[in-house]
Amino acid sequence: MDVIVQKYGGSSLSTLAKIDALAEAIAKREAGAERLVLVVSAMGNTTDELLKMAHTLSPRPPEREVDMLLTTGEQVSIALMAIALAKHGADAISFTGGQVGIRTSEHHTKARIESVSADRILPHLQERRIVIVAGFQGVAEDDSLTTLGRGGSDITAMALAVALKAKRLEKYTDREGVYTADPRIHPQARTIPRLSYQEMLEMSHTGAKILHPRAVFFAWKFGVPILVRESMGEGSGTLIEEMEENVEQAIIRGVTHDASVAKITVYDVPDVPGIASTIFEELAKREIGVDMIVQSNTEEATNDISFTIKRADVGSTVEALNALQMKGAKVHADPEVARVSLVGLGIKTETAVASKMFRALADRGINIQMIATSDVKISCVISEVQVKDAVQAVCKTFGL
Amino acid sequence: MDVIVQKYGGSSLSTLAKIDALAEAIAKREAGAERLVLVVSAMGNTTDELLKMAHTLSPRPPEREVDMLLTTGEQVSIALMAIALAKHGADAISFTGGQVGIRTSEHHTKARIESVSADRILPHLQERRIVIVAGFQGVAEDDSLTTLGRGGSDITAMALAVALKAKRLEKYTDREGVYTADPRIHPQARTIPRLSYQEMLEMSHTGAKILHPRAVFFAWKFGVPILVRESMGEGSGTLIEEMEENVEQAIIRGVTHDASVAKITVYDVPDVPGIASTIFEELAKREIGVDMIVQSNTEEATNDISFTIKRADVGSTVEALNALQMKGAKVHADPEVARVSLVGLGIKTETAVASKMFRALADRGINIQMIATSDVKISCVISEVQVKDAVQAVCKTFGL
Repeated sequence: MDVIVQKYGGSSLSTLAKIDALAEAIAKREAGAERLVLVVSAMGNTTDELLKMAHTLSPRPPEREVDMLLTTGEQVSIALMAIALAKHGADAISFTGGQVGIRTSEHHTKARIESVSADRILPHLQERRIVIVAGFQGVAEDDSLTTLGRGGSDITAMALAVALKAKRLEKYTDREGVYTADPRIHPQARTIPRLSYQEMLEMSHTGAKILHPRAVFFAWKFGVPILVRESMGEGSGTLIEEMEENVEQAIIRGVTHDASVAKITVYDVPDVPGIASTIFEELAKREIGVDMIVQSNTEEATNDISFTIKRADVGSTVEALNALQMKGAKVHADPEVARVSLVGLGIKTETAVASKMFRALADRGINIQMIATSDVKISCVISEVQVKDAVQAVCKTFGL
Repeated sequence: MDVIVQKYGGSSLSTLAKIDALAEAIAKREAGAERLVLVVSAMGNTTDELLKMAHTLSPRPPEREVDMLLTTGEQVSIALMAIALAKHGADAISFTGGQVGIRTSEHHTKARIESVSADRILPHLQERRIVIVAGFQGVAEDDSLTTLGRGGSDITAMALAVALKAKRLEKYTDREGVYTADPRIHPQARTIPRLSYQEMLEMSHTGAKILHPRAVFFAWKFGVPILVRESMGEGSGTLIEEMEENVEQAIIRGVTHDASVAKITVYDVPDVPGIASTIFEELAKREIGVDMIVQSNTEEATNDISFTIKRADVGSTVEALNALQMKGAKVHADPEVARVSLVGLGIKTETAVASKMFRALADRGINIQMIATSDVKISCVISEVQVKDAVQAVCKTFGL
């Protein structure tokens, strides 16, 4: 039995008319040997609207109750999708996350999936029924409803694909696939036909919002190919799968950028053993995620440490650093930086790639503040106002 | 531990401001020895809006999926109420019907509660936590979500009151209590301070929409007093409880009316044994509820049978009767009738009550088409256009 898991986001389900059209297309397609599992998000901006209600009532709504509220969004979607599919003659049945045995940790609003049971879905698939599952949600050990955080429906879809040993995960969005660069900045950007898991993971981490990094990580770990396509489009989309590295040579896939970054520099950090780990332990304790880190040793008995964080975490980061009371250290926050990254298997094979990227930026007068590299990625931190320029320059240099 | 179950309807929860004000009042009150369980309905017209969505997508949405959709309405309410109570300093926790073990039959959109577990609620009450439960919903044996039909939140509240051995069920509405007559028809109508279960049951059955008859039935069966009050009002409301009959004498409580009634007459029914049961079995099989039945024996070998049904059932009733192919019988439907009922313990003790009621109607030129009586009720079927006249006439005669 070939199982395909399809994931539909809120923009594909923002009106009853869209749900109806989508159901019609799915009902028509459902004829071959493949069995379908649909994972759906809440309609349009429902999640934001529900959150707004919670915050209108209270500045600090209890997270357990926020989850109780938010999970209704996807429940509405699965019911409406089942109703629409039935009208178009398809045999379909809907389930909440809890009903299909998606068990999670108890971290409300950002729970992690602990286990998924295929037992509740397989009998329906065997009877050729389309199974519709609410994304983004699960049930904790204490039976309370949980949500998986932003992009959580991708995680649900991937977890189900793994549990059902699916042939493929198809993610439907309002975009044609994964682009070589953001088309709003670089209108000539193209859809990338194929990507390796590692490349997609780097793209997700560095700013491509099309797939949640955790979903890509699971796809890689369990070898589930992902096809990213436009909901009602004609294009063939982007296929993310395992690739033999020696077959591909010097390939540059695309440019990503993230303009919601801030740079923190701590000057004159006392040069005592363990001071860096003290800093980053303190940030981890406060659940502040740190991305790039650069430490510069000076001749003196102090160091400068720079790192990037999400812009929203600037306040809590500065607070955390001040709480450490490092003697003589000065904390400086620059919230107006951005990260531009070049991703592709070619980066580790061709050493000239990095220097070509730095040259492209320098030629436009863009100063590089920090650099980080991996096997398949080079990231540069630059001033936020220069992001557009930087993306266009790199695209031009590498023909993206 | 004295447990009070409070039930709040959609009109008390139609806006975030109303939820906030209600939560503030409840949080203030929650100080004494009593422990609170709140049962809430969906906000305002949410249920109707959700139903409309389902019917926009499909003329016949599958009932299992309609339940999946509708249950989100109450889930939103419990979450918002918990968030609002927390803001006002109360310790509160919300639960769906399924989470507190409300098990029902599998009749989607009109399920019956089969069992309720107090185990999941009691530990929270012992810790002085306010427990908020979603009304109208439960879980069937196959783990699917179910709803209890219109007014189902009353049933949820009553089932919980019984399971928790509650001291009292308090039903909060936008009315001051149970009135002697509908104030829209008879502006001088008063709130009735006390009613017996049997009287309230008759009032609910005959048109007082303030309490679901099944909820009153359970209250009577298990001896749970019900207090009907206005949500944010000052009045003391109506208390429904067991009453010693000899203490009360010749009491007339109020007039109810139901203008959504239709009368069906089958003329020339063959006078063969069991023909009446054949008719009503056929209707029961199609889930058509029959209210008053009058059978008139004629001199000939045929009978006439008249009965009342809900107006919405006229089409399916005529269809059912025609399907029986009763030789020579003629079916006549009159959808423009109404039922006016007088309720009170006095009816069985004072024989003159019935004749006084008939006289009141006759004096206004109102023709009585059918009559049905019980220990505490007299119902008359009249022409729908005369309802207002009839209610006012009866009120005047009995000083209501």
